[in-house]
This record gives sequence, structure tokens and C-alpha cells, in this order.
Amino acid sequence: MELENDLYTESGWEIKTNTFDPEQTIITGSNFLAGNGYLGYRGTLAEWDKEDYVGCIVTDTYDMADGKWRELCNAPNGLYTKLIVDEQELSAFEGAGETIDYQRELNLKNGVVKRESTWKSDAGSEVELTTERFASYDNLHLLTMDYSFKAKEDTKVTLVTGIDGAVWDLNGQHLKDYQLMEEEDLIAIEATTVEEEINLDVVEGINIIGGRAKTENIIHQDKKILRKLTFDLEAGQEVTLEKFVGIYSSNDVDKPLGAAVNDIATAEEEGYSKLKEKHEQEWAKMWDVSDIEIAGDLEAQVLLRFNLYHNIICTPAHTDKLPIGARGLSCQAYQGSAFWDQEIFNMPMFLYTQPEIAKNILKYRYHTLDGAREKAEDLGYYGAYYPWISGKTGQELCPDFFFENVLTGRKIRNHFNDWQIHISPDIAYAMWHYYQATGDWEFIENYGAEVVFEIAQFLFSHAYFKKDKNRYEIVRVLGPDEYHENVDNNAFTNYQAQYVLDKAVMIYEKLEKENPEQLEKLLSKLELDSSDRENWEEMAELIYLPQPDEDSLLIEQFDGFFELEDATPEEVESRLQDPHEYLGWPVGVATRTQVSKQADLLQLFSMQDRFSEEVMKANYDYYEPRCEHGSSLSPSAHSIIASKVGYLEEAYDYFMESCTVDLYNTNKAIHGGTFIGGVHTAACGAAWKMIVQGFAGLGIAGEELKFNPALPEKWDKIKFNLQFRGKSLIISIAPNKFKVKMKTNQGEEALALNVNGVTKKLNEGESVEFSI
Amino acid sequence: MELENDLYTESGWEIKTNTFDPEQTIITGSNFLAGNGYLGYRGTLAEWDKEDYVGCIVTDTYDMADGKWRELCNAPNGLYTKLIVDEQELSAFEGAGETIDYQRELNLKNGVVKRESTWKSDAGSEVELTTERFASYDNLHLLTMDYSFKAKEDTKVTLVTGIDGAVWDLNGQHLKDYQLMEEEDLIAIEATTVEEEINLDVVEGINIIGGRAKTENIIHQDKKILRKLTFDLEAGQEVTLEKFVGIYSSNDVDKPLGAAVNDIATAEEEGYSKLKEKHEQEWAKMWDVSDIEIAGDLEAQVLLRFNLYHNIICTPAHTDKLPIGARGLSCQAYQGSAFWDQEIFNMPMFLYTQPEIAKNILKYRYHTLDGAREKAEDLGYYGAYYPWISGKTGQELCPDFFFENVLTGRKIRNHFNDWQIHISPDIAYAMWHYYQATGDWEFIENYGAEVVFEIAQFLFSHAYFKKDKNRYEIVRVLGPDEYHENVDNNAFTNYQAQYVLDKAVMIYEKLEKENPEQLEKLLSKLELDSSDRENWEEMAELIYLPQPDEDSLLIEQFDGFFELEDATPEEVESRLQDPHEYLGWPVGVATRTQVSKQADLLQLFSMQDRFSEEVMKANYDYYEPRCEHGSSLSPSAHSIIASKVGYLEEAYDYFMESCTVDLYNTNKAIHGGTFIGGVHTAACGAAWKMIVQGFAGLGIAGEELKFNPALPEKWDKIKFNLQFRGKSLIISIAPNKFKVKMKTNQGEEALALNVNGVTKKLNEGESVEFSI
Repeated sequence: MELENDLYTESGWEIKTNTFDPEQTIITGSNFLAGNGYLGYRGTLAEWDKEDYVGCIVTDTYDMADGKWRELCNAPNGLYTKLIVDEQELSAFEGAGETIDYQRELNLKNGVVKRESTWKSDAGSEVELTTERFASYDNLHLLTMDYSFKAKEDTKVTLVTGIDGAVWDLNGQHLKDYQLMEEEDLIAIEATTVEEEINLDVVEGINIIGGRAKTENIIHQDKKILRKLTFDLEAGQEVTLEKFVGIYSSNDVDKPLGAAVNDIATAEEEGYSKLKEKHEQEWAKMWDVSDIEIAGDLEAQVLLRFNLYHNIICTPAHTDKLPIGARGLSCQAYQGSAFWDQEIFNMPMFLYTQPEIAKNILKYRYHTLDGAREKAEDLGYYGAYYPWISGKTGQELCPDFFFENVLTGRKIRNHFNDWQIHISPDIAYAMWHYYQATGDWEFIENYGAEVVFEIAQFLFSHAYFKKDKNRYEIVRVLGPDEYHENVDNNAFTNYQAQYVLDKAVMIYEKLEKENPEQLEKLLSKLELDSSDRENWEEMAELIYLPQPDEDSLLIEQFDGFFELEDATPEEVESRLQDPHEYLGWPVGVATRTQVSKQADLLQLFSMQDRFSEEVMKANYDYYEPRCEHGSSLSPSAHSIIASKVGYLEEAYDYFMESCTVDLYNTNKAIHGGTFIGGVHTAACGAAWKMIVQGFAGLGIAGEELKFNPALPEKWDKIKFNLQFRGKSLIISIAPNKFKVKMKTNQGEEALALNVNGVTKKLNEGESVEFSI
Repeated sequence: MELENDLYTESGWEIKTNTFDPEQTIITGSNFLAGNGYLGYRGTLAEWDKEDYVGCIVTDTYDMADGKWRELCNAPNGLYTKLIVDEQELSAFEGAGETIDYQRELNLKNGVVKRESTWKSDAGSEVELTTERFASYDNLHLLTMDYSFKAKEDTKVTLVTGIDGAVWDLNGQHLKDYQLMEEEDLIAIEATTVEEEINLDVVEGINIIGGRAKTENIIHQDKKILRKLTFDLEAGQEVTLEKFVGIYSSNDVDKPLGAAVNDIATAEEEGYSKLKEKHEQEWAKMWDVSDIEIAGDLEAQVLLRFNLYHNIICTPAHTDKLPIGARGLSCQAYQGSAFWDQEIFNMPMFLYTQPEIAKNILKYRYHTLDGAREKAEDLGYYGAYYPWISGKTGQELCPDFFFENVLTGRKIRNHFNDWQIHISPDIAYAMWHYYQATGDWEFIENYGAEVVFEIAQFLFSHAYFKKDKNRYEIVRVLGPDEYHENVDNNAFTNYQAQYVLDKAVMIYEKLEKENPEQLEKLLSKLELDSSDRENWEEMAELIYLPQPDEDSLLIEQFDGFFELEDATPEEVESRLQDPHEYLGWPVGVATRTQVSKQADLLQLFSMQDRFSEEVMKANYDYYEPRCEHGSSLSPSAHSIIASKVGYLEEAYDYFMESCTVDLYNTNKAIHGGTFIGGVHTAACGAAWKMIVQGFAGLGIAGEELKFNPALPEKWDKIKFNLQFRGKSLIISIAPNKFKVKMKTNQGEEALALNVNGVTKKLNEGESVEFSI
């Protein structure tokens, strides 16, 4: 089936294209990404280099080279390979021979990226090229490629393949001290990061199948180490180059070079097919729990899987010490670092399908507590103030001066790093969410309690008490709607803070009752006592929560929001003097209007189940037309709330909008001269949320797992797996029927399911149906 | 003696110039102003019209014509007079005949503005012109001019004189419905303001002396009513036109036209000389108490008197219901409205010389309490939040959008009107200062208590209590240094707030003890009770007052000030892309640096006598080089503190800088296309402060009047009058001798004087000397 942007799918499991658009080099590089949570290899062509945004971003290689931006390194490109025929390099670009046939494919089922093309040199030689690659899920340090070529006629062909260490860097050159090495039949580059002098090693080995090189040389050339092989191809003879690339840093193992050499020696022995098989087995396990089937809408189906795919590969599931980058491992943009996106957008899918991964994601925040404590202290607070942009240590990576005023060329002082406090309660919220969905109290005892207490401490130290109003207020913040900085009593922030303070008290009391020793230990470690618990309780009780207006039911986004100019996004945009102007604070055209980057209230409704449908509807009706969707986080919140209030068509439209942010190239990849491309991983995670929390209406009410399903008209059925408190469920929803099956061996206890208010019990191995 | 800017003085009582500089039309119009607190008539030439910024600004005629700016009206110009010789109009400009001789003078002793010039027409006729005018202090509604001319040869001369109603307006045309009238031998214009339809009447009458007009016609011409008189002048014959102009509005009297007609009929009978004599008697009384003599420095002497003169004529001393304009009555700029300048800069001179006028100034704030209450309520507070720009009603006149970003053409949202809260405590502070200097407790009982209580209420409703720090904080304000908006715990604001809360408690307690009925009445009126007093007391005790650093002794201007970039004013200014750029918030080049518009701490030191000399010195040393003096209020604070810490040379330099802001044309009159000219009345009032509070070191310590004198090296002596608690004193200070004389009939009680720590008692009619 045809998709937009010259793409198509056949089965709903792959994204294909038959056209090559050089204008979309950046975006297809991100979309056709191969990755495994340890590394991300961009969907670029084998013969490309840094000019074409080739990238192999490796986790845990944070480096600051320009004194301002700390970001992940782009490793030397071990898959670099070019084919030379008639002294001309094979190329997809016009003016360099002729591309007769061209096809690329991202196979979502197994993460294999393919390319098939037929190319004719200016001298008339015709060559067929078929490549595929994957980043192994069996061995995360392994990147492999099968590069096969054959000629129509007898042809002399030169293959240049090896490791290209001249890499694309966003902010400063991160690698230095290149060592080009040969180890037996392997070649290698070891380089060092400039800031912490981490070693990063890339080792390459090859198998040649179906032919023998006439000559073979190894060339050391600046930052490249390359093999040059020549072949006398007979007509129709297919030669395959199997490439195996091992990547390790000294943050992974003590001897990264040795580790990579071992891996590649083994890989050479096993060969591409075997490696692929083992890799595919891992993907099969993941899809077995993660897939969501949509019947009746192949476009939605493939878009959904595309987003789930990217949410999987961006997540360093193998560790509990690394963040999910806002652009995953698709490039260096956004510093390979976590925002609130991680807990609120990326995590839920794992929480309900592979809770161990969700736990890793959350434990990352536990391990970075010290960074958050440092930030709190630096800004005059105490407790844990989590960074807006969080790398490995939890120290704040967001610089003071971020955007540029394109009209004056002056840098803008945005306050994402010191005023956007909701990140902290969002993390505590997610930890409670984890506990609710898994019942894993041990996690709370061992990790969550400390984090939640420290966040409650931070919130208390940030808050002001307004004596004349007998309430706590939170002053000078920005909520999710980042166009409006310096606001007071942001509804999103205050409600989230109240939620977390309440949970801090609950955790304290449960620990006090059930495990007083553990509580004592924790209080002593954190230098807390019962007076702190009293503070949390009082603040939870007295914090100002903007209430729905009695008549309009509207909740004000922050103090004075409704007094701002009531303009439309179009009107506001028409005031731009330059299309690249930043719209937000302090002087952007949206700042003094009600036009939002994303709608805080809708976001809040999608997270807290305490507002009536009438209130959600009234606020959706008000805030939706005033939202500019300047964030890729915005459409999904709109879709979820539209689902909840019965606007199914809008819910569907926003679902599709959110799912196509990357694939249909709807966002700019370069803005104001700055690269901001890459995969919007929050939107990827949101795809799962829109289905399960939006259309299926998943919620937790006490011990019950509840649903308020409502499918878009064109969908015949959706089907997905859920993990809930240790039980594996299969949910299928048709327009009139809601069916839940519990797998076998899930324990004796029955699960209470509530669908549209009707509760039924479900035992292992059984199914239950609801009419809807 | 020669002064700068082509000016000179002879006796120190007059400002003279022999040159005409058309480039300085705006500034000389302001400097040579005639006024009497009811009206201000700009120092323009008789033949000029609105193109040359002729203005006759009348108090109590506030009008908004453009929907944004409410300002005083410029009345029809009743002094308009032009002389035509050989069909050519006499003119000071080049290319219109020839000016052979030119002299102008502002006589500071009597407020008479003179012009003498000899002019030759292109046809060769030579005419001598001598004019003088004054705005009567005997009858505030009267403006008079003596316009005398004679020719060298027999000459036919035409005189066109009358009322020019085509007036210069800053923001929108304020007058409509012009009626041109003739009443007996008088001519008149009545016009109406557009907003409140106030009638404004200007009536003109003339006497002709020394000749008789050959023909006399009255011409009605659009907004002008003019007399055309022709004369056959004989050689050497001097003809004098005496013009009498009466000005009333319907805010002054019910029948303004009748009142003006009566005044002018009487004036015609009395004639110019008699009127001038009566006027001069009033000035003599004023100077008798207001003058400050400086021996040994004629320039400083005349500059000082120039400033005192303007501080007198800008003050509507005749009423307790009108403000002192930041540009007085010199033009419409700054809306003829009061800022904090009024209490802190203009008032002190009156407080210590004519306290009844100080009382009127303060009662104005009592009468505008309702406007301040309205502002507080509008912004979500209670009590009285005085407006940043205050006209007649005390409603906020400062618009939200004030400056323009000249780089983008967009209006800047400055928060002078909603964040600059120090105006309220400043007013309460001034009321307490009035009580301290006069002992007039009755004023506090009848007016001050209500104002101070309401301000204390406002401060409490504005403050936040920080529970974790057990202190009150004042958040999101701007202090006097307006380049830095949105700051917390501004030292100036917090100290002033604390001062006032403390005084509110003192007043409450004194009333409770001495006049409980009055207190009850007031509490009942304001709906207060003893719990409010407790709030004030608690806040006074627990408000955060930034303390001097133990090592550096520096007090931080606001939270985080010392973390801002430490740049020099020169460096900051070098970053301007356009010289007209606003330097301050939100994106001006000074905003994120330590460069200030004025130095808050120095201002605070000049007002509160609680900081040690060491602390003042350390802070002067730090803040002075970082001050850009973007406000005309700035140099005087520097002069006063430099005096206090013994930097006498700097004190003198800043004194001179402050005193010459207007006269030496050091400030721009037009900025970013906006007229901001006019007399800087705060600097005028500050001249008195710099002498008496600065060099003489006046202070009040309990019942003692104290001095810490320190004269600039070049001054032989200063001498001035003081009123203190009903006693008239004459102070003279020579380098080694401080002498105080008390006039006779000052009551039996002795006054304790403390000079440099030595206390002596003084009785009426006696003198006392201190060696210094």
C-alpha cells in the first residue's frame, strides 16, 4: 500500500521506498535507523561519509568538546564501503553514473535495513547491488552488513571497505588520538574522547563469499583504515562482502579493543546468516509482547509499528544506568540525553509489556540522584531537582543560552534548566505508576522511596507559602508549554507536585508500618525526620490546585493565562518577521498570547485520572484550537484526550499526526542553522500510549485494571499484549466487543477487570468478554 | 561667569545666553520655563508656534486622546505675538532678516524670562525688541508678558498677537470644540478635552503703552483668534504691548470663562508693573526659606538655584490633590504625573523649608488611595498598591507596552506598572519622614495612618513566606534599577518594606495607646483587626534583609545579582546594535549583566540611616563603576553617598552632573522617535538633597537633628534655612565651622543638635557653633 512521502508497505511490517530524494538525506538517515539500544546506525548508504550525515551513535560516550554541549560520540564508521567500476564510484546521486533501479527497506520485524539498486557507470557497466545490515540484538556490540554485488557483463570492480573515522560531529570534535591498527585479518581504529579520554574502539572483519579478490591492500589514510580489493567479475557472478564490526568503549569493558577483536573473530566464524538468525530470535521475543495489531487500516498499522520499533531501539534496555535520548541514538541532537519524555512517553510501553525494562529506565534516575541533588543545591534548594537534560550522571546538561534570536543574532536565555521543575515530580509520578502497574513494592523500598522523598523535599524547598491565602504556591516555572516561561501556579506542575507529595506521604506511612527499619535507614541517610513528612502532608493538602471554573469548567493553565491575548496560532505565526524565529519566551510572538507549544491541561488529563469527562471536554474545546503543536509531544496528548471525550475522528487524526512526525518528514531537521533532526522518540513511545491509554482507555483503579475503549471508525479490531502485576494478558477490541485473555501460568489470584464500569474477574488461562 | 552650553551668569541668580541655537529649541524651551505650580509656560519665543514646541501645560487637565496615554493638556497659547516689519516676520532663525543682537535670561530670583534682540529686516529696517514674561505666583491663573519694541528709523510695523489654539500635543489631540470669542476688549478661546470634556478657557487682554495703533482688527482663523495692529513707529519710539492671559479649566472653577475674564479685566487695570511687583513679593518669600548660598563657586551656586527654581515651579503647592510631574509642567512627557520621585526627590526640600507644601504633596497620596486600592485589587492583592505613574486619581497610568525594541519594531512589555512595588513603601516612608521632621502627629492620625496601614496590607498580601527558611520574601519585582526586572528579594524593596511594616506597627500601637477611638474607627473603615497588626509585625521581623557579606561587606542587590556577568557599562554599551536600543529587560544588553541603570544600594543608603560607613564605602566602591546612570535619579544618590563616605571630589562631580542634566543638555530630548525632553524635576529636587543630606549630612536621630558635614574643597561656605519640628534654623557651614542659629519666636523648648556626634542644645534667638 502507498504511504505518503513516496513510501509504501506490503505487509504492515516494513517501510519501503523506490525513490531516492537527496533532499531527505537527513530524515531517511534517521527513519531507516538500525539500532539495539547500545548503538544506533543511521540509515545512510554504505558509500557515504560525514557529509551525508553518516552516524553510528554509541551510548555511554558522553563528551564535551566545545565547552558547552555534552553529547554522545559518533563512532568511526566500520560499515564504510564503496564500489568502483570503470574508475567511477557507484553513487545514488545524479550525475555520477545512472541509477536504474533503487529500493530501500526497513524491516520492522527484525530491524534489518536493506538496499537494492542497479547502477550503470558512465562507461556502460551495469552492476546490481544488494545490501542489508542490522545492529545485533544478540550481541549489542555487533554491527553487520551483507554487501552483495554482481555485474551484467564481465567487469573489473574495486571494493574499498573499512573504517572511516572522519565522523560527523554536531558540537565540536569529540574524538582524538586516532590509532589505526591491523590485527591478524582484522582492522581497527581506536580513538579517545577529548573530555574524559574514554577509549572508543571499532574493529572490522570481513568474509568474502562467491569470489576471490585479485589484489588486496590495506590503506592507512588520515582517520581511515581501508581495505582495497579488486575483482574480475564474470557476468552474473555475485560476490558477497560480509562485514562484521565490533564496537566497545572503555566505559563498557576494561579492554575494549580486545573485546571487539574477540567478538569479530567469532562473528567471522559464525557468518552473516547465523548472526542474523540469532538477532531475529531476539526481535521475535520483543514483538511477541510489544506488537499491537490494527485490523482494517494498514497505514495506521505500519505507522504504529514504525514508532514502536523506534521506541524499542532507542532504549538502552540492557542497562539501568543510561538514559533514553530525546532523539534516541539516531544522531547527536538533544545530546543523547533524557528529558521528561523518558518517563512519560517512552516508558509506559515497557511498563505494560516488559516491566523489567521500565524498571531499568527508572533505576537510571535512582543512579543519577546525586546529579539531581547537586542541581538542587546549586540553585538554592535541597532534595533532588532532576535536570532538564540528563546524561549519564544526572547533572544538568542544558546550557543557559540555547536558542538564538534570529532577528538580532543574540543568544536567548531560556530557563529550561532552572525553571522547568515539573521533571522532578514527573519522575516520581512514573515510579508510582510503575508500582501501580507491577505491584513491585520492593522497587519502591530499594529505589523509589529515596527518589520520591528527595523530590518531595525539593518541592517543599521550592514552594512558597502564601499566608494571606493559606496555600502553597509554585512560582516562576514553565510547564510543558515552553512558550510561557516565568509563570506562577502552572496547573500541570502544581497538580503533579500535589500527586507526588501525597505519594511521598503514602510511601512513608507504608514503610513505617511494614518496614520501619528500612525507613529509619533511609531517613538517616537522607537526614530526614517525621517533620519532613508533615511538611509534605501539609503541602499536599494546602497546595493551590487551579479548579475548573464553575460555569465554563475551564482550568487556567497558569495565573493570568486567560488575560493574555486570545489569538490563533495562525495569527501569531503571521507576526513572525523570520520563519526561524523562536516563538516563546522572552520576546517570541506567542509569549504574550494564549497560543501554546503544547496544551498543559490536556497533558495533565492524560496523566492524572481525576478530572471528569465534562471538564476534559470543556478544556479540550478551549485549549485545542489555541495549541500550535510546536512540540512533537503535543499531538499524542490531544489524541488521548480526544479519545477520552469521544472525539474519535480528531483522536484518529492526532494519532496519525503524531505517528508521522518522522516518517512523513513533517518537522524541520535543521532550524536556525542548527541540526535538530533525528527520531522523535517521545512521539514513538506515545504511539503505544495513544492506542492503549487513548483508544483502549487503559487505567488503574485500585486493584482493578480498567478500560474505556473507543475505536476509530475505520478500525475493525486492535489486539495487544499487556503485563499487569505479573499477569500476561491479551486484549482484543472490536467495535462492540472487548475481550481479555489471560495466559497460563500467571498465578492463582484472579484479576478484576473493569470495562466501562462493569467489573469481571479473570483467571489464568481464561478469557472474558465485555460488550461495548 | 561663563557656564557651559553657551550660558553665563553674573550674580548667580540668573541664567543668560547671547546665542541662539535652533538645535536646542526643545531643551531651552524647558530650561527657560516660567511656571507657578499651576501652569508651566515653556521658554520659547513669542512668535513661535507648535512646530517649535511652544507649550503652556496646565495642571488638572488630564486627558487621554489616543486610548493609551493620559497626559496634561497644552493650553492655547495666549502669549502668541509676532512682529512684521517690511512685510517680513521678525525671526531668530537664519535666513529671515538678520539678528544683530540676541540675549535671553531666566531670572531665578523672580521667575521672569527675558529676551532682548535687535533685528534687521531684509529691507534694512532695524528693530529692537525687549520682552519679559512670568507666570504669576500672586494669581496662579495669570500669565503676563511685556513686549516692547522700537525702531531705529521711522518704520511701519504690524503686530499680530492673540491666542494660538493650534497646540503641540504628544499623544493624540486633546482639545476639541474650539470656541473663539470676543468679550468687550478681551479675546478668548474655550476648548474641551476629548475624554472628560473639561472646559479649558484662555482669555487675553492687552494694554498698549507708548503709542497708538493706526488700525486694529481681530481675526478668527481656524484655532486662532488674533489681533492685528499696525503702527507708524517714529525713530526711537518705544511701544509696549502688555499682555495678560487668564487660564482656567472647569476643574478649577464652575465658570472658567467668567473667572478668566474677571482676572484679565483686573489685570489690565493694574498693569504689568504692579502685577510683577506682587509676583516678586511671593518669590521673595519663597527664596527667603528655600535659598542655599554657596560661597566660592559661582557655577555651583547658579546651577543649584536653577534646580531649586525648577523644583519650586513644578510643584502644585496650592493644592493637596495634584501630583508633581516627573517633567513638571515643562511639557506633556511623563504624563504630568508623579512617580516615586515625588516623595523621595521633590518633597524633602519642602519638608525642611515649607512643610505645609510637603504635607500637600503627601495628602495627594491620601486622596488617591482609592486608585491604589483599585490597582492592588486588579492585580490580586489587597491594601494600597500605588501606581507607578500617578495622575489625579491614583489609578495606574503606566501602559503595559512602553518602550519599543528598535531592532524589531515590536513593543516591549515592561513591568513598571505591575512589578515595581517599591513605590508603595516609598510613600509610607515619606509620610514617616514628614512626621519625623515636623512632629505633626495629627497628619499621621488623619491621613498617614490609613495610607501606611493600607500599604502594610499590600506588602503582606504581596509577600511569600518561605517555610523552609522561616522568612518572608518579596518575589518578582524591579527595584530602582529598572534594567533588572523579575528579580527576587531586591535589597532596596525588602529594606523599604521592612521599614514601613515596622512603622505601621508603631503607628498602630501609638494610636491604640493615645487615641483608641480613632484607631477603632480606622480599623473598622479598613476592615482590619489586631491580627493584621500581628501579620505586619511578624513580616517586619521575618522579612529577608540581604546582609553585608562578612568579608567583602557587599550587599547583593537582589538574589543572584553577583552571578550575573560582571561587565563595565562601556563594554555593555559596545554591544548595542542601535544606539537607541533599550538596555533593560527583557532582552536589553544590560539585563544579564551587573550594569545598573541606577545603584539600588546607594539609593537605599541615601534613605535609610542603618548602614555603617564601612558598608556604604564597600558598596559604593563596588556598585559605582557598574552603574550606567541611565536615570537622572542616579547621580544624586552617588553624590550623597560619596559625601557620606568621604569621597568629596566624587561627591562634587556627581553633584555637578546631577545639576546640569537639563541646563547643559546632557540627556537626549528625543529618544527612539519619542519626545522625552522636559525638565528632570527629580534631579532638581535632588540638588537640595545633595547639599543638605549629602554635604551637610542632615539626619534625624530620635529627638536630635544631626549633621555630618563635609564640604567640597572649593567651597568656602554654604548657608541655608531649615524648618525642623516647627523651628526655623539658619545653618552655615564653613570648612572648620558649623553654625546654627535659631530664629526668634520658635517656642520655648530647646533643640538638640548633634554635629559629628557632639550634641548641643539651642534655644530660640540663639546661635551655636561646632568645630568640624
